[in-house]
Amino acid sequence: MAGIVTFLSDFGLSDGFVGICHGVIVGACPEAQVIHLGHGIRPQAVSDGAQALAGAVPYLPVGVHLAVVDPGVGSQRRAIVIRSADGRLFVGPDNGLLIPAAEVAGGIELAVEITNREFMLQRVSRTFHGRDVFSPVAGRLAGGLDPLELGPEIEPEQLVRCRMPGFELQGSSLEAAVQYIDSFGNVQLAVGREDLGELFAPGGVVEIDRGDDRYLAVCADTFADVGGGELVLYEDSDSRISIAINRGHAAELLDIRPGGSVRIDLSPAID
Amino acid sequence: MAGIVTFLSDFGLSDGFVGICHGVIVGACPEAQVIHLGHGIRPQAVSDGAQALAGAVPYLPVGVHLAVVDPGVGSQRRAIVIRSADGRLFVGPDNGLLIPAAEVAGGIELAVEITNREFMLQRVSRTFHGRDVFSPVAGRLAGGLDPLELGPEIEPEQLVRCRMPGFELQGSSLEAAVQYIDSFGNVQLAVGREDLGELFAPGGVVEIDRGDDRYLAVCADTFADVGGGELVLYEDSDSRISIAINRGHAAELLDIRPGGSVRIDLSPAID
Amino acid sequence: MAGIVTFLSDFGLSDGFVGICHGVIVGACPEAQVIHLGHGIRPQAVSDGAQALAGAVPYLPVGVHLAVVDPGVGSQRRAIVIRSADGRLFVGPDNGLLIPAAEVAGGIELAVEITNREFMLQRVSRTFHGRDVFSPVAGRLAGGLDPLELGPEIEPEQLVRCRMPGFELQGSSLEAAVQYIDSFGNVQLAVGREDLGELFAPGGVVEIDRGDDRYLAVCADTFADVGGGELVLYEDSDSRISIAINRGHAAELLDIRPGGSVRIDLSPAID
Repeated sequence: MAGIVTFLSDFGLSDGFVGICHGVIVGACPEAQVIHLGHGIRPQAVSDGAQALAGAVPYLPVGVHLAVVDPGVGSQRRAIVIRSADGRLFVGPDNGLLIPAAEVAGGIELAVEITNREFMLQRVSRTFHGRDVFSPVAGRLAGGLDPLELGPEIEPEQLVRCRMPGFELQGSSLEAAVQYIDSFGNVQLAVGREDLGELFAPGGVVEIDRGDDRYLAVCADTFADVGGGELVLYEDSDSRISIAINRGHAAELLDIRPGGSVRIDLSPAID
Repeated sequence: MAGIVTFLSDFGLSDGFVGICHGVIVGACPEAQVIHLGHGIRPQAVSDGAQALAGAVPYLPVGVHLAVVDPGVGSQRRAIVIRSADGRLFVGPDNGLLIPAAEVAGGIELAVEITNREFMLQRVSRTFHGRDVFSPVAGRLAGGLDPLELGPEIEPEQLVRCRMPGFELQGSSLEAAVQYIDSFGNVQLAVGREDLGELFAPGGVVEIDRGDDRYLAVCADTFADVGGGELVLYEDSDSRISIAINRGHAAELLDIRPGGSVRIDLSPAID
Repeated sequence: MAGIVTFLSDFGLSDGFVGICHGVIVGACPEAQVIHLGHGIRPQAVSDGAQALAGAVPYLPVGVHLAVVDPGVGSQRRAIVIRSADGRLFVGPDNGLLIPAAEVAGGIELAVEITNREFMLQRVSRTFHGRDVFSPVAGRLAGGLDPLELGPEIEPEQLVRCRMPGFELQGSSLEAAVQYIDSFGNVQLAVGREDLGELFAPGGVVEIDRGDDRYLAVCADTFADVGGGELVLYEDSDSRISIAINRGHAAELLDIRPGGSVRIDLSPAID
């Protein structure tokens, strides 16, 4: 499946940045097929981008995976390519963005710093490496370029890592970071069902603690299992615990924002 | 024109859902060419999606038409493929979403329930059949799979229909559902010019009734026929009656929302 | 690189307009590869579209460049194709949208009015020439059609021009139009670094005048050169002067809107 380039960024779609990068990729590799994995990552939120890419990889054909969430552009942060054990090539900044995805793809087999100007655009700006460095390199890799042509190898342990959101569980009291809020208002938490064990009991009732307000929710297999307007805790399609309202917008009701966290009592004493 | 897959959904573009489905389609059919028909359908608004798809079909090459607006995911609603008389293959949930488009495409020639797990992803989630069921099936159909391989045939009259917005006309008093508000603020009504007959007279004046406020509008061939800032009623590019303001935002001025309706007196006695 | 069609418009992505045009292009040229250059141009802002297209062209493979920002649709404005000296074909309305891009691409070599109905859709609406005229023509050109088949030649000086935003410099006092605000809140001004000469001195301090409020900013090579939260004036990736805040949203802080202008004292006497 030569020629596939997936592309994830925080560029948004209101500007022409994404289209220009697409043009550069196709200029570097006319037979490239570009799949836009989404460009709505919160601006400069590296760990959001890292999660999104890692969550998508199992569903993507093996190919070149370009990702740009790059608050350090213009500084000394390195530009890198990582090859995973299953043969995928990840292209982007060395800020932790690519690592969780490479781990999902069997682990890091090779890491290379991109230093060879021959594969970049002739003029490299200080603020738009997505266009000037990463896109032409992604195109050339899709066309069959050996990553070792791009620059010196890096030891995997030398790569920059980013802190990923997690959870804390004390007894039946869970504090979990908000990993993601989708456009339906469903709130994905940074905790898996297997992390909760028997505390997640389908049919059971839990209590979501939002400061002064407390909300009861039902543990269920899917949000279609509860009535319209009811809160539900369920294992979502990424195998994470999510909060939803059947046919409603949970994030709005509970006033949950990206980057925040949620406290849940998993076996409340209900009066 | 083998390999074309058009894709319509209510997923929005802020999440990575669309890109993941695109990846699954290409994984199932490397030569597939995916055309995004839009992912901005109001969440779970099946009849909005049905209209958008039916309106687009006359402009699309014959191919596989994937559409996902699926409030019933995780319940017992069926997953289906419909083949239309002109050879198009529509893939999506059995909730009425696909039927108006199939009717535009010559009518339903064959309907099949998708039950064969062989053509789905290995693990089928309860909440994301767009990724796990519909996308791999769309890819396989684009690659030439016979729909009858997917599961048992369904009688067309057994398919679920959805209620489509319409209009009521009493004398010269029209009450029409809002079918669509585009990003320019133009309001498409669920009524065609032919439904109004001589009541729609270019150059004539009508009165739009918005509760306490009444607005005069001119019937015209196009909104360029009136001055800047003037309200106009015209036959739009979908052959529907629309309300617009030349170089303005009609929906905002008139406070018209998606899902609502508009009352218009087509031959007002103007004082 | 036959078959490449880039597509820029003000249609937005919430509607299906873009997807329908994509379908028409592929219907007219099954081997076309469509690159979406962005559809977030401010509605009907021809000069915004003209700048975006001209800025993108140096990064795009030679091909067909479709652009639709078309407030005059339905009036007598002409539909045109321009061939530039480097072999690109620009398709769109004759309102100035295509001209700066053609000039970037070596200048106008040929201009043709699109009048031949054979290459349009069978029914041409009054309000959606993007779908009915420009997309099928773009597809046919991507498939190798000679532009002279489309209609009569136009003398380049007969083409409509649009007024582009600019700047005024009196001593060290600069008044520059806002050319663009990106989704990070960076404000691009309609002035290049070379226009300012030695008035733009890296490390120097300038004063941005926003009515009652005045803000100090540092001239720098990139916004990574200043501390978090500091205002910076720098040459951006389009070779224009931009205002940014390192890890912040400059347009919001300074209350700068699209279509406005900014006054900057480039050598303030700081008390």
